[in-house]
Amino acid sequence: MNLSTDTMISSTPAPPYYAVIFTSIHSDQDAGYAKMNDLLSGILRDQPGYLGMESVSGEIGITVSYWQNLDSILAWKNQKDHQLAQNKGKQQWYDQYKVRICKVERDYSFEGVNHTRTTKNNPSF
Amino acid sequence: MNLSTDTMISSTPAPPYYAVIFTSIHSDQDAGYAKMNDLLSGILRDQPGYLGMESVSGEIGITVSYWQNLDSILAWKNQKDHQLAQNKGKQQWYDQYKVRICKVERDYSFEGVNHTRTTKNNPSF
Repeated sequence: MNLSTDTMISSTPAPPYYAVIFTSIHSDQDAGYAKMNDLLSGILRDQPGYLGMESVSGEIGITVSYWQNLDSILAWKNQKDHQLAQNKGKQQWYDQYKVRICKVERDYSFEGVNHTRTTKNNPSF
Repeated sequence: MNLSTDTMISSTPAPPYYAVIFTSIHSDQDAGYAKMNDLLSGILRDQPGYLGMESVSGEIGITVSYWQNLDSILAWKNQKDHQLAQNKGKQQWYDQYKVRICKVERDYSFEGVNHTRTTKNNPSF
């Protein structure tokens, strides 16, 4: 899912934490997609261990969700509405996708003069 | 940089490998951005340890680049043209960005009937 209500950069805690990178190519069959997207967006926010999400759609879609640990990722993978969405996604909505489960080891941020703070967790990268 | 010439899902090797998630909010000052983007896209392909990239721009930009190891990420961070781009990015092109350095521990793919193969490295997630 490209949960497009999330258009900001996520404020995640200091590493380590986990990221799920979901890269997709949509099919031309989008019936039911927007409704499922809305449903899952609401449920996701209450999932244990959920830390945030960043999502953009264009020629491909990239959605990155952030999680406390692998257990919380697995619980979301197995959540029943999400399971329905995954099946529907394979049957209908996606021509292709790839999921990558990652451990975030370092991060750093930049906020310019239009923002109020600059944070750096690890400026060496 | 949101290197928009890369619009496909990257064919990365079996994990472990590394991902750099670059999430950005552009300013309204884009002079020189497209030219730098083109320059860096060409250089990037020859960087040691570079495995691929996925990039989309919308209300935010998400660019994920993939790398063999942390050393190759650091070498790209320190590459001289990329250093110029990073400085220009902070001075001009970006209001805000966040960089996350991640170890990809597992991945799996789906390719539907419009594609020729289905690969799964770890179907449990």
